[in-house]
Amino acid sequence: MSEQSRARKHKRAMQKQKANVDAAIEAASTDRGVAVLLTGEGKGKSSSAFGMVMRALGYDQTVGVVQFIKGEQLSGEEIYLRDHCPQVELVQMGTGFTWDTQDREKDMAAARNTWAAAQRLLSDERYDLVVLDELTYMLAFDYLEEQDVVLAIARRPAAQSVVVTGRGGGSALRDVMDTVSEVKEIKHAFKQGIRARRGVDY
Amino acid sequence: MSEQSRARKHKRAMQKQKANVDAAIEAASTDRGVAVLLTGEGKGKSSSAFGMVMRALGYDQTVGVVQFIKGEQLSGEEIYLRDHCPQVELVQMGTGFTWDTQDREKDMAAARNTWAAAQRLLSDERYDLVVLDELTYMLAFDYLEEQDVVLAIARRPAAQSVVVTGRGGGSALRDVMDTVSEVKEIKHAFKQGIRARRGVDY
Repeated sequence: MSEQSRARKHKRAMQKQKANVDAAIEAASTDRGVAVLLTGEGKGKSSSAFGMVMRALGYDQTVGVVQFIKGEQLSGEEIYLRDHCPQVELVQMGTGFTWDTQDREKDMAAARNTWAAAQRLLSDERYDLVVLDELTYMLAFDYLEEQDVVLAIARRPAAQSVVVTGRGGGSALRDVMDTVSEVKEIKHAFKQGIRARRGVDY
Repeated sequence: MSEQSRARKHKRAMQKQKANVDAAIEAASTDRGVAVLLTGEGKGKSSSAFGMVMRALGYDQTVGVVQFIKGEQLSGEEIYLRDHCPQVELVQMGTGFTWDTQDREKDMAAARNTWAAAQRLLSDERYDLVVLDELTYMLAFDYLEEQDVVLAIARRPAAQSVVVTGRGGGSALRDVMDTVSEVKEIKHAFKQGIRARRGVDY
């Protein structure tokens, strides 16, 4: 095929695609906050949530971030938000990974306290975006009641968006979300002996 | 099972998990920049790349972002970087979506110009993190040579990390990456008639 005929074919294909895109945009007529779940085993769930934080901050939106699991090592996004975005409400469970504490009672109490902060944000219409980072593990370990979490997400202010991250997440949680992405691990540097990288992995 | 025996069982399981985590950390001994590909149909690829930008900025790293496709609508992350992070090198192809331009020749010239900027960043060791947002489409449309892209990524400075986003991405590109995540769409708000949301989708 000549470059000229390829250019013509391209133009026709793109006209068709534009018509499809325009029709889809036209059909999407409901304007409200969305609930997004980023799950799966692969890399990119929490980083995606923090990318959305950057997006929201671009529009000067009000943002709250609740981190349900946090290792002892500081993460770059956490340092960034603390140093440059004092307007972002940042709540951390602060007990470290559950395999570090090895104390179910202590973890449960910390989870419940952190969830109380999340509930406060989810019922406050001033917040445009609420991130519940690593929340799914709290459900997997039965530290929180799934029904409480689902109801709080369902009953949040209509204009508020919420992003939940973490592996797993049961069917009731998936049902209440508008968008669910499952991040599949095709390969991971760590499994090839490469250390977690500052600015990429933490 | 009583809460007490459950707590004991939890402690044993977590001790085992901690040993596994520690062993994996010990085994990962190579310290260098990583190449990450975020692909698949689901939501969360570009936002994940921008979350890594936030991470890198938390450590005051030097960051370059090259956006190969960009609609006419401004996005939050772009506004944020322009307004708050002038130290980030931001390069945009600036032609809009290829189904908007419908002009293969013009798109190809723009892609080649933008790739020249990407090559500059990929050969500059001052950059800790380089994001090549939506690069895969340039390969899918044959706007860029796959071999050029693969070589530039392979030959970048050893300490530099690179993040590539976009659907698809051929096997040669996947081979050169250390980490590949495929974001699977389980569901998407847009397909239920909900409009793309500011601060979440753009």
